[in-house]
Amino acid sequence: MNFSVPSDFVHQAHLQAQHASRGASPNPAVGCIITSPTGQILGQGHTQKVGGPHAEVMALRDAAAHGHSVEGATAYVTLEPCSHHGRTGPCCDALIAAGIGKVVASLADPNPLVAGNGFARLRAAGVVVEVGPGAEEARELNIGFFSRMVRKTPWVRMKIAASLDGKTALADGTSQWITSEAARTDGHAWRARASAVLTGIGTVLEDDPRLDVRLVDTPRQPHLVIVDSQLQTPLDARLFIAGRAVFIYAAAPNDAKKSELEAHGATVIHLPGRAPGTENKVDLAAMLQDLGRREINELHVEAGHKLNGSLIREGLVDEFLVYLAPKFIGQGLDMANLGPLSALSQAVALEFKSVDLLPPDLRILARVPGRDRF
Amino acid sequence: MNFSVPSDFVHQAHLQAQHASRGASPNPAVGCIITSPTGQILGQGHTQKVGGPHAEVMALRDAAAHGHSVEGATAYVTLEPCSHHGRTGPCCDALIAAGIGKVVASLADPNPLVAGNGFARLRAAGVVVEVGPGAEEARELNIGFFSRMVRKTPWVRMKIAASLDGKTALADGTSQWITSEAARTDGHAWRARASAVLTGIGTVLEDDPRLDVRLVDTPRQPHLVIVDSQLQTPLDARLFIAGRAVFIYAAAPNDAKKSELEAHGATVIHLPGRAPGTENKVDLAAMLQDLGRREINELHVEAGHKLNGSLIREGLVDEFLVYLAPKFIGQGLDMANLGPLSALSQAVALEFKSVDLLPPDLRILARVPGRDRF
Repeated sequence: MNFSVPSDFVHQAHLQAQHASRGASPNPAVGCIITSPTGQILGQGHTQKVGGPHAEVMALRDAAAHGHSVEGATAYVTLEPCSHHGRTGPCCDALIAAGIGKVVASLADPNPLVAGNGFARLRAAGVVVEVGPGAEEARELNIGFFSRMVRKTPWVRMKIAASLDGKTALADGTSQWITSEAARTDGHAWRARASAVLTGIGTVLEDDPRLDVRLVDTPRQPHLVIVDSQLQTPLDARLFIAGRAVFIYAAAPNDAKKSELEAHGATVIHLPGRAPGTENKVDLAAMLQDLGRREINELHVEAGHKLNGSLIREGLVDEFLVYLAPKFIGQGLDMANLGPLSALSQAVALEFKSVDLLPPDLRILARVPGRDRF
Repeated sequence: MNFSVPSDFVHQAHLQAQHASRGASPNPAVGCIITSPTGQILGQGHTQKVGGPHAEVMALRDAAAHGHSVEGATAYVTLEPCSHHGRTGPCCDALIAAGIGKVVASLADPNPLVAGNGFARLRAAGVVVEVGPGAEEARELNIGFFSRMVRKTPWVRMKIAASLDGKTALADGTSQWITSEAARTDGHAWRARASAVLTGIGTVLEDDPRLDVRLVDTPRQPHLVIVDSQLQTPLDARLFIAGRAVFIYAAAPNDAKKSELEAHGATVIHLPGRAPGTENKVDLAAMLQDLGRREINELHVEAGHKLNGSLIREGLVDEFLVYLAPKFIGQGLDMANLGPLSALSQAVALEFKSVDLLPPDLRILARVPGRDRF
């Protein structure tokens, strides 16, 4: 296929990056398109699973596999090519060695310590560098990676499935299923792009969920994080899935149970509140710091109204992914356990980012204003 | 302006009909465009306030005012031209007398007793008649009129303004303002196209609202209907607005208060429940029958969670107009007071018809499936 407009190539590179979004964690999902001066696509690729080649190397290999020379070609890439030896060799060197003449990058590396180094290395080798096209999509796709690099904590997305009147379950707790399969499948796609899924012990004990990705294809399962202050996670819980990392945050010390859970493959982290009176609860803000250190980019929260309420009250949620089913339930469980407000001005303020019909349900993305400016 | 595609004329006629939507009640909102064989618009018009000319007559007058002959012209009209002497003379006769050669009508008259009579009369006079183009928009615009003609009851639209988590007020009842001015203005536009606004005595006593149309222009105010079982409406309530009809439905007889309210210009209707144990409540289903007899097409409900709950439980609501503000309130008043369900299958099932961002809020239109098929 031939494209003559550079913005098409930027978009193609973004589509490549999207291919990487379920597998790249903890790396960013990056796409690369290499084009000839006449507008022919010579090679394309995206970030492989951690330890595998980055997008640029994949695109160079693709071009080579098709017998194309990339001498003087342009590489469209959704993030600044790396200049350091991490798990793989630096992409800059590969692009330079292959004779690439121009690099169009959507964004600079978010890590302040390395931002611009890749561009400088390319320019020093005589490669023309243009930065900016497609910046917004590239950043949104990797908002968790950017969050971790800049804020040192994950991007926290809270998923809620409710009826139009805001109920997540009947009064007796029944919640399977309020939303339809289309919404649940979409929810799994969001799980798949997260580094980890977070839930609370209440949900574990009441629903015994797997919280893995089943309804869409994925090259890897996101990790699972459980807020379990008293270490009540049952050893036979269905969430223990072969090959998936499980992190359990606890407040009460319980060495015996900790050993049992760790024998099951879980990692137990003791992280009680430090303020007086909070010692029996997990310090949620500290947990996010810890998850940042553990290379969690996007944290996908699927919890009950208690943990939802705690995370919201502490200002730890960045955005909400809300599925509304076209029904009224009346009495039932609320989305989040928040104390009574004394004035409407105290309400948690959000901004609707998008709304889409996912027949028969509705998907709403709402963000805490300003939280994505980091 | 010249149009060459007939569907453009159909759309133009629909836009004319929309101009009529705030003033035509209890008549349908109808638009008419008269075009020459070469595709020139000769005249256009829409239904005037009750007692005034219908769309066809307005379009004929418009053509005459511009010095255009309509001999052999085509009239695009969004509803079958009337053939009976109602408040005005029959439009069919006016079209025939003017020499119109063809009529393209979106819909037949919904009244089974007259449906097709207008078309027959036109055809008998040698006018070519085509029916169907633009039928869906024309019906939606007049869904209340169609409902009253066919079902003998109004189309009941329940408006709800809530936070994203489904709360219509704080726990203490504070609800001004959950949604923004953009949503409130849109809400007034929906009020304006309704024949009447319905509320309950709880809202009257708690908020003392005017419930009139202020934020958009309108040639008339919709009537006001109050469900007030014990006749508690205060004589100094702000809802008594000069020139507006107020209908108060009561269950308990109270002749003294009735006289006082009627001296204030209200019409008090005694309509208690007929089933044992319901005598103290207004019979809501019977009220809708009565409102149909009083020529109420669209009934716009703005009530509290109690009356909302009663109307929903009794299956009397046709659609929901829900505004969601981008905020979480937590504890507060629910959209509708519905008893606890014992299974999710008992939830009130709806269908999302549309969803739009009305920044900063969201507008959702949801309909009871099948309720618009009458």
